[in-house]
Amino acid sequence: MTAEKLSQIGELPLLEQIRKDFSKKSKNVLVGIGDDAAVVEPINKYLLATTDMMVEGIHFDLRFVTSYQLGFKLISVNVSDICAMGGEPYYLLLNIAINRNATKRFLDMFFDGVKDAISVYDTGLIGGDLSSSNKGMSISATVIGYADKYIRRSGAKMGDKIYVTGSLGDSACGLELLKKIKKPVPLRRHLSPSIEKGKGGGVKTLCFEYGLSKKTIEPLLRRHLLPEARNPKDFVHAATSMIDISDGLLIDMSRLCSESKAGARIYEEKIPMSPEMKKAAEKLGISPIKLALSGGEDYELLFTAPAGRKIKAISIGDIAESKKVIVDKKGREKPFSAEGYQHFGRL
Amino acid sequence: MTAEKLSQIGELPLLEQIRKDFSKKSKNVLVGIGDDAAVVEPINKYLLATTDMMVEGIHFDLRFVTSYQLGFKLISVNVSDICAMGGEPYYLLLNIAINRNATKRFLDMFFDGVKDAISVYDTGLIGGDLSSSNKGMSISATVIGYADKYIRRSGAKMGDKIYVTGSLGDSACGLELLKKIKKPVPLRRHLSPSIEKGKGGGVKTLCFEYGLSKKTIEPLLRRHLLPEARNPKDFVHAATSMIDISDGLLIDMSRLCSESKAGARIYEEKIPMSPEMKKAAEKLGISPIKLALSGGEDYELLFTAPAGRKIKAISIGDIAESKKVIVDKKGREKPFSAEGYQHFGRL
Repeated sequence: MTAEKLSQIGELPLLEQIRKDFSKKSKNVLVGIGDDAAVVEPINKYLLATTDMMVEGIHFDLRFVTSYQLGFKLISVNVSDICAMGGEPYYLLLNIAINRNATKRFLDMFFDGVKDAISVYDTGLIGGDLSSSNKGMSISATVIGYADKYIRRSGAKMGDKIYVTGSLGDSACGLELLKKIKKPVPLRRHLSPSIEKGKGGGVKTLCFEYGLSKKTIEPLLRRHLLPEARNPKDFVHAATSMIDISDGLLIDMSRLCSESKAGARIYEEKIPMSPEMKKAAEKLGISPIKLALSGGEDYELLFTAPAGRKIKAISIGDIAESKKVIVDKKGREKPFSAEGYQHFGRL
Repeated sequence: MTAEKLSQIGELPLLEQIRKDFSKKSKNVLVGIGDDAAVVEPINKYLLATTDMMVEGIHFDLRFVTSYQLGFKLISVNVSDICAMGGEPYYLLLNIAINRNATKRFLDMFFDGVKDAISVYDTGLIGGDLSSSNKGMSISATVIGYADKYIRRSGAKMGDKIYVTGSLGDSACGLELLKKIKKPVPLRRHLSPSIEKGKGGGVKTLCFEYGLSKKTIEPLLRRHLLPEARNPKDFVHAATSMIDISDGLLIDMSRLCSESKAGARIYEEKIPMSPEMKKAAEKLGISPIKLALSGGEDYELLFTAPAGRKIKAISIGDIAESKKVIVDKKGREKPFSAEGYQHFGRL
């Protein structure tokens, strides 16, 4: 049944199923999926909106990820943008263009990932569009959220402390591992079909070849395949500027500096790195600090707050007048600038 | 310069230009393009949201449309969904996955179409995502709107009159013409580079072969290439149910009936058809009423209102208990059901 191809099922039965699966009304939804547009009750807060796309061959490679992971990650990266404004996600809209030869099972698993993400972030799927595609898969999500107070990238002030919410480089390290495993690793959020499951080979071989344990690599793979957006509620009252780290600490710090018309001094030894990442990077022969500074897809929040405030996050430096520098363990300063992935070729 | 490829320009300069081009703040926008998410002031009305996608090879064929037309149409089809709920469009978010070998000129023209649509509907572009694509182009838009009163598909009552806002079948007829012209026709909304412009041939040959004048075919091509969403404000106070006609009168009427748990009686002779469409269809050897009933992409509003109300629209029938029938000129009844395009194969 589930190996049935989408082309054998047709659009209307698929839409009917999605509508049924996501019919649970949440948070003031008056009209959900199934009409021309969704309708929700007004809320007297700032309205936030963001959209992000994931394109096959550019943002993901179906040889390395499951459709469950795609669904989960798509929601997380969008929710992360709402969190980076200091907001809370409320509603989700989805667009899916998928090859007509894809199986029903593939699409069902994608929606399982969406469902798990929706439950983690307590958001409601209120609309979307499903299309066949002759070529690659492409998916996008729009998340609508609300905030009592919103935090821009542009509010950092000279003397503010710079914070991140968690360890950096795990996701990039997870990607390096995946490139060696060369097949999807069937991690899910709740159920944890151990990463040993599947048709064997990849993970085991990797662990054997590089002298790594599954306990070391699983959290790294998880950070890459199933990233979770960070909730800013513990520090949003104090934050002066904020961004989420999607393209790497240095490029996102540069963006924040550029919008705030300020510089930054970051202390290399303060950059949080997980023991798993350090170990795996070492075994793979990659510099851990490089992954932490430029790896990207961490989805940790990077923010600033006035000095002297008690903040539940990791301080990594200070906002400076204009120069952007990293200070290494020996106290030497090295300037940095926006470096990271750009679409359309140029790095 | 403009023949430059996107891969020669890079993502950041492109994003910078888009940000500059769309920086005009509108309607309570506090943070527009360029931060993690957009922020707008709360409005004490129902919030509406919709999203729609257009995929190369499925929804459009770059041999037949210009990128200007794609940009304009993408916004129109989304705005039309907001109108179909009785709302007014306010904000727009865009996703564009485009081949790295596309030219800067192609993307600029796409945004010209977006700009013209934004100005027609008085909406603001507040966010989006731009990605390269290895394969086809795929674009999506999310439109957020507001309404004092919203109209569902499900409110039609026995005895209500059925209305449409304008002539049907023009767009489908325009598509038939385009398939014979076999090249893009450079129509734009304001400037009207006459359809004779371009590298000649297609339009002229078609007109000659089928004995049609440009005056006849231009409005039909326009309805297909540059559809405009209809404003419901003149009748929203009276409407009991509403949908926009995207897949054809019969399929969309069936949807409305199904949601309203009602039937419909539509009078063939009341279906509005433009003289241009009737003439062109006749010359092409296609039945005009077939185009009007099943053609699709009309983006007229189809709605119901209690009998006896003065409504500025064209009455085409009545809501009945359960049967869905078309009554022809001789008074014969013919049942109809959902018929129209479905993705994934089945018609």
